[in-house]
Amino acid sequence: MQTPEMQHLLDQSPVHRALRIRAEDTLSAEVWFRCQPGPEHAGEDGASYLHGGMIATLLDAAATFALIQATGTDWATVDLRVDYLRPAPCAELVIKGSAVHVGSRLGRATAELSDPRTGVLATAAGTFTRLQPLSERP
Amino acid sequence: MQTPEMQHLLDQSPVHRALRIRAEDTLSAEVWFRCQPGPEHAGEDGASYLHGGMIATLLDAAATFALIQATGTDWATVDLRVDYLRPAPCAELVIKGSAVHVGSRLGRATAELSDPRTGVLATAAGTFTRLQPLSERP
Amino acid sequence: MQTPEMQHLLDQSPVHRALRIRAEDTLSAEVWFRCQPGPEHAGEDGASYLHGGMIATLLDAAATFALIQATGTDWATVDLRVDYLRPAPCAELVIKGSAVHVGSRLGRATAELSDPRTGVLATAAGTFTRLQPLSERP
Amino acid sequence: MQTPEMQHLLDQSPVHRALRIRAEDTLSAEVWFRCQPGPEHAGEDGASYLHGGMIATLLDAAATFALIQATGTDWATVDLRVDYLRPAPCAELVIKGSAVHVGSRLGRATAELSDPRTGVLATAAGTFTRLQPLSERP
Repeated sequence: MQTPEMQHLLDQSPVHRALRIRAEDTLSAEVWFRCQPGPEHAGEDGASYLHGGMIATLLDAAATFALIQATGTDWATVDLRVDYLRPAPCAELVIKGSAVHVGSRLGRATAELSDPRTGVLATAAGTFTRLQPLSERP
Repeated sequence: MQTPEMQHLLDQSPVHRALRIRAEDTLSAEVWFRCQPGPEHAGEDGASYLHGGMIATLLDAAATFALIQATGTDWATVDLRVDYLRPAPCAELVIKGSAVHVGSRLGRATAELSDPRTGVLATAAGTFTRLQPLSERP
Repeated sequence: MQTPEMQHLLDQSPVHRALRIRAEDTLSAEVWFRCQPGPEHAGEDGASYLHGGMIATLLDAAATFALIQATGTDWATVDLRVDYLRPAPCAELVIKGSAVHVGSRLGRATAELSDPRTGVLATAAGTFTRLQPLSERP
Repeated sequence: MQTPEMQHLLDQSPVHRALRIRAEDTLSAEVWFRCQPGPEHAGEDGASYLHGGMIATLLDAAATFALIQATGTDWATVDLRVDYLRPAPCAELVIKGSAVHVGSRLGRATAELSDPRTGVLATAAGTFTRLQPLSERP
């Protein structure tokens, strides 16, 4: 899938639009996103750091889309582990998703949230279940 | 901590207010929340199911507040596992958080998201690190 | 499944026999085991605490058998999270496995390792995939 | 730490010796082990695949030693997620451990179990807590 097609798919969720997620690059089993969360996604009013749930949201999206990219089918998250390494600023961030293993029914993917200025902020690893091919979506 | 005090603390995050999280009940090491996510939290435009990241957000909040309730200090999430059992509707849902183990520096907590009509939708288990006592917050 | 039948199934693995796992009780979606690890399962020579991998082994076994008990089919572990709360002694310990959710293909289960004298030592939560019915095993 | 010194440390656990874990190579924040599990580590008598708990043991060891290598201090596992991608044969296998993030108290590490003939079999990600410097061990 090319970047504009992936952006179109990403934009179907109001959650992704609110976090201003943009598809930047796609490889065969990897996706690169940028996002621009705002003060409405902060852990506290006036704080400069992101709510942990927003970090999980960004990582979940990137991991899922890496599997979509690798297979051309849709995937649903079965379970996800998120590791919070350092507080993430409410600023432009980069998210990388990687498909690790693709089976007939189950897929595994990882994701990494980074601040381009300071490095990795959080990582995730999850199990996903295969849904219908994208071409069969209504 | 009584329910109104916990509600006050919950409301300090714009993310919690957006998901309309309300403290319903608090025990010594357990919290019960209700939430009312809207269509802006759906997995896709027009879909009736919640984005997985919003589910992680709700579970993370309940688990963290269970540790706050058990200790009177603030806690930050170190890592979190979320298990998605069934699609969660964008409707009024119940979240229970439970402190499992409290150490001098690390705490463990679990959480459960339920639909009062149909049962458990998702569960979580995480490790947390102790921050300053609430009484020392600015 | 009754306790003797579960013991027979448990004993088919040399790993379970080495850890001296005994089926103590079975409910509809829960199993209770006892085990008696020895100095050969210690974290270090001469240490009195169990190697973390042995704790994972005990929790994995109990969680898997809870799903076997709940369904009458065999299950394989897809992924497992283990939380180590306190060092576990190389002594008689109790393990409880609980089936949390059973789907047509995926199951979820948790497990808890306890010292009868001091309480919970470690917990686990995992995703499992359904294999063939036990009645069809060779 | 050089390979012989790491082998000496590994050999202090009877569990590592039973699985015939050998330190093959060490980098600044990475370790490479080989192991040779036998039929006593199989999932079932006569089966050619490893018990899942033995896979967790191998991954836990490699992740922990990657942090030891990165810091010169000892570490204890706080929690660990293991992903089982494919059945692992009771044969010579390779384990790679990588330190991902090192903090003053908490560390994060991942590990990967591979069959040199067929590729990755299982992965793990965990949180660890810092213990005393190795130089202070008795």
